[in-house]
Amino acid sequence: MKYEITLIQNEMKKEGIAAYVVPSDDYHGSEYVGAFFKCREFLSGFTGSAGTLLITENEAFLWTDGRYFIQAEEELKGTDIKLMRMGEENVPTITQKLKELAKESKAYVVGFDGRVVSYGFGKSVLSCASNIKIKDISLIDRVWNDRPPMACEKVFELDVKYAGEYRSSKLTRVRKAMEKEGVDELFITSLDDIAWLFNLRGSDIPCNPVFLAYAKVTKDKAFIFTDKSRFDEALSLDITRDGVIIEDYGNMIQHIKSLPGTSKIWVDEQKMSYSLTASIPEGVKVTDKMLPTVLMKAVKNKTEMKNIRDSHLKDGVAVTKFLYWLKTNIGKEEITELDCVNKIEELRNEQDLYVGPSFDTIAAFGAHGAIVHYEPTEETNIPLKAESLALFDTGGQYLDGTTDITRTVALGPLTKEEKKYFTLVLKGHLNLAAAKFKKGCTGMALDYIARSPLWELGEDYNHGTGHGVGFFLNVHEAPNGFRYKKVPERDDGAVFEEGMLTSDEPGYYAEGKFGIRHENLLLCVNDRKTPYGEYLKFETVTLVPFDLDGIDKKLLTDKEKELLNAYHKRVCEKLKPYLTKEEGAWLEKATRAI
Amino acid sequence: MKYEITLIQNEMKKEGIAAYVVPSDDYHGSEYVGAFFKCREFLSGFTGSAGTLLITENEAFLWTDGRYFIQAEEELKGTDIKLMRMGEENVPTITQKLKELAKESKAYVVGFDGRVVSYGFGKSVLSCASNIKIKDISLIDRVWNDRPPMACEKVFELDVKYAGEYRSSKLTRVRKAMEKEGVDELFITSLDDIAWLFNLRGSDIPCNPVFLAYAKVTKDKAFIFTDKSRFDEALSLDITRDGVIIEDYGNMIQHIKSLPGTSKIWVDEQKMSYSLTASIPEGVKVTDKMLPTVLMKAVKNKTEMKNIRDSHLKDGVAVTKFLYWLKTNIGKEEITELDCVNKIEELRNEQDLYVGPSFDTIAAFGAHGAIVHYEPTEETNIPLKAESLALFDTGGQYLDGTTDITRTVALGPLTKEEKKYFTLVLKGHLNLAAAKFKKGCTGMALDYIARSPLWELGEDYNHGTGHGVGFFLNVHEAPNGFRYKKVPERDDGAVFEEGMLTSDEPGYYAEGKFGIRHENLLLCVNDRKTPYGEYLKFETVTLVPFDLDGIDKKLLTDKEKELLNAYHKRVCEKLKPYLTKEEGAWLEKATRAI
Repeated sequence: MKYEITLIQNEMKKEGIAAYVVPSDDYHGSEYVGAFFKCREFLSGFTGSAGTLLITENEAFLWTDGRYFIQAEEELKGTDIKLMRMGEENVPTITQKLKELAKESKAYVVGFDGRVVSYGFGKSVLSCASNIKIKDISLIDRVWNDRPPMACEKVFELDVKYAGEYRSSKLTRVRKAMEKEGVDELFITSLDDIAWLFNLRGSDIPCNPVFLAYAKVTKDKAFIFTDKSRFDEALSLDITRDGVIIEDYGNMIQHIKSLPGTSKIWVDEQKMSYSLTASIPEGVKVTDKMLPTVLMKAVKNKTEMKNIRDSHLKDGVAVTKFLYWLKTNIGKEEITELDCVNKIEELRNEQDLYVGPSFDTIAAFGAHGAIVHYEPTEETNIPLKAESLALFDTGGQYLDGTTDITRTVALGPLTKEEKKYFTLVLKGHLNLAAAKFKKGCTGMALDYIARSPLWELGEDYNHGTGHGVGFFLNVHEAPNGFRYKKVPERDDGAVFEEGMLTSDEPGYYAEGKFGIRHENLLLCVNDRKTPYGEYLKFETVTLVPFDLDGIDKKLLTDKEKELLNAYHKRVCEKLKPYLTKEEGAWLEKATRAI
Repeated sequence: MKYEITLIQNEMKKEGIAAYVVPSDDYHGSEYVGAFFKCREFLSGFTGSAGTLLITENEAFLWTDGRYFIQAEEELKGTDIKLMRMGEENVPTITQKLKELAKESKAYVVGFDGRVVSYGFGKSVLSCASNIKIKDISLIDRVWNDRPPMACEKVFELDVKYAGEYRSSKLTRVRKAMEKEGVDELFITSLDDIAWLFNLRGSDIPCNPVFLAYAKVTKDKAFIFTDKSRFDEALSLDITRDGVIIEDYGNMIQHIKSLPGTSKIWVDEQKMSYSLTASIPEGVKVTDKMLPTVLMKAVKNKTEMKNIRDSHLKDGVAVTKFLYWLKTNIGKEEITELDCVNKIEELRNEQDLYVGPSFDTIAAFGAHGAIVHYEPTEETNIPLKAESLALFDTGGQYLDGTTDITRTVALGPLTKEEKKYFTLVLKGHLNLAAAKFKKGCTGMALDYIARSPLWELGEDYNHGTGHGVGFFLNVHEAPNGFRYKKVPERDDGAVFEEGMLTSDEPGYYAEGKFGIRHENLLLCVNDRKTPYGEYLKFETVTLVPFDLDGIDKKLLTDKEKELLNAYHKRVCEKLKPYLTKEEGAWLEKATRAI
């Protein structure tokens, strides 16, 4: 058995723990986590972003999903850790496995660090068998000697010229929502909600400009629980002036534990950790639902909307320059997937207010494109050939907005199949972007538009059509999205409102051959108000040409050609002033009407 | 004050009741009710199908919706009953009004007959003010001397050659669902669920072939609570042989009241009356959700699917003969709206297994077509002119299925506006009927298809796009439908399955001018199974031509023309054998390819 696992097994014995669960999360349920939180990776050696380790007296199991089966197999070799392929037949879930393991025991103690486990998971473990007891305990520090410190980077203010609303105004709105709900205190554990509410940003987590903190809002006070040394003096003063108190990160749980029994609080138990939720004293009246910050944050204000347009123009310049470079140099010099990642970063770096990537760029040639979450590494990196398709899914963080774009590029002559699916996916993308719809619609009412060209043929893509996008915040943001059916663990069923920013990214993946995805970001805006009600539509803020070399014109209707031509005309007009003469000439051709 | 109201006011005084509520419902929450249950009509004089009367010591108020404002005004003249226009500004809801009325009192007693009031309404009255008390009492019998008797028509068996499944098999499936839910007893109060479960039909309610009854299913017994004299001897024997016990209608409440405190029961409190729900003893563990019969009834079996096709062929013959008669005679002889109603009924009567209408036929000429629920009466009846549009929404009950169809007919030259909307509505109708979609979709994911031609222009129709349809049962049936947003009181958000029957009926209503609606019934069927999953599509079972005289061809895409031509080709082929030579020749022209 892998040495690190045996160390944990020793500690389990001392603590009387029969099974110990190590997930991949931080204390805030973040999508990406810092080095400090990579406990599962440290113990198992598996470096994928998703996976949960279960350690018993003599065994160890790692659950991960289809994206990572091959990688996990490779990385677990020689460790004696059993790979549990999620979703495959006869593979139990973690709770099913625990139930099975507990069968023979009178009392079966399951341990985990309750700070990195959601309350929902904890409850499901408890309810899977009556003889299971939970021990909330962290064993990692006892065995991980050179554990990296928890990130504690500087916190900075996002100027109101970017944020568009003062934190005092946001706090007023949040307090109104609390009053309406009849609660005295609101506890926030999700990092992007805290960053949004206080107009603060940080860099504790890769790609997400947030900082590790908890927060609490009462009728007349607001608290941020984090390291005070992260704020410089001027910022500290500003914050204090707005009635915001900074306390130690560790104090949050004390605030919860010491709640009087008569308190009325608002939390989102799905997002809160097991430790925190389990600390709420008996008698406290808990309103458990989506926090008011989630919807407020999703509905961008007029300033944010203007900034989003600005940042997307700059991002469009960078990505279009990349496409020019790629299309004119492919076949002439060696270009690898990682070269593309670096080139995109280099071009974004030339743009004003650029901070860094909003997620790790996917640059996938040929068959790599069919691996939905493929990110090239030194090991997998391959040179692009002057043939087939390459898929680039990439985004940037700017002080004036977060971008996310996917382009699929023809690097040489395409097969009939490649062109067919390139065009079918584009049809879905264009028609969704052109939708006009009545207020009241969620993404569920619109998702069909993007999928129908594939559904018509019994085909599909196995991911959502779109997700919400933050404002200089997380590239994946609740509660808006496009998805044809309800997935309970996804908060993406919100009714659309002017100001919501959502990706439109249908795809098609031919395993072993190629992958296609066309992604722009859509800003929801008012269309018109009529006696029938209020109508909304989307404004496409992403400005980068689609590769006309990929299109089979016969598959487009006249209306679809018009939509594409109008988009390309706008792209050309907007970008040309920022391009060199050669790039401009190339763009004119690349955006010609078809 | 109207005399009948003063009689109730006298009774209220005796009983210490401050406000008395009289809704329009029967004991089962039925959409249509028999004469016995028309208490609100008896007391107020208002004959519309929807309305609630509130009587206080000295006043009376009638709530009704926009469909009935004009009619109610007329009928309430001289009664001193105040008309409460639902949905208009500054018009309180009933509970808001009760709260206001109760303001001055220490204890304010609200009375109603708890058998005709839903549990949900009762709860909302109780919770609107803390000083409100409820008195569940019927005062109607004391004042309504010549009240018609409660309907008690013969009950008959629906042969398994129509129903496709024996009641013993249905009971087995229901018991499996109960076992899965961990309940001992299931109480059913909705009449169509009872009729479906026991393969029985009746005629207690106009248009709905059901009978007044309650039912209960236990692990080894099943009860129908209704008058035993309604069953002939052979049927009684059959039912008894299947382990079904018939008890008096009034016994249902006793079965509920005498439940042991340890019982686990399954009810749908939203559908159950206040009296029944309030009778559940303390301690009983209640599973409150949609009854298992609802989904089972909605998913038609193979025999029902075949029968549905058969009944729709016959109905198509009847309605097509009507259209032929109308189109060839208009302008030559006087034809009124009621003549059309009668002609349709006459032609349906010639069809095999026809029982009666599935709802009152809407036959609406010109501006009448814009009144969504218009039904011609002796007072409103007008002759059709050889111009503009007439709208016919009509359906039949056959032993082998329930039909529901709307056709909008050009009676002469149309305006550009009439043709435009006729065509736009048809586009939506045709595209929805042609949808191919992945299993998992609800009607919410598909509704956009039907509305988008109107939404594009900021227009709409203010009703759902489609509702579920029963099998020789209610023409409006849960839980499937097409609706772009969630309406909590509508159970129409089910995931589609093969066998569900749903109407596809977009419309357009130009007030004071004309109304358009195109309605066919769509049977959900399997499309194909691929590596991506299971795909579904719709088979249009309604077989009647759309009026080509209404179409502006320029507004149809090639694909839409193909869809229309393919449908018309099928209509012509299927119907022609059942038509006269003249009718057949007319149909060939009416279904020509465009």
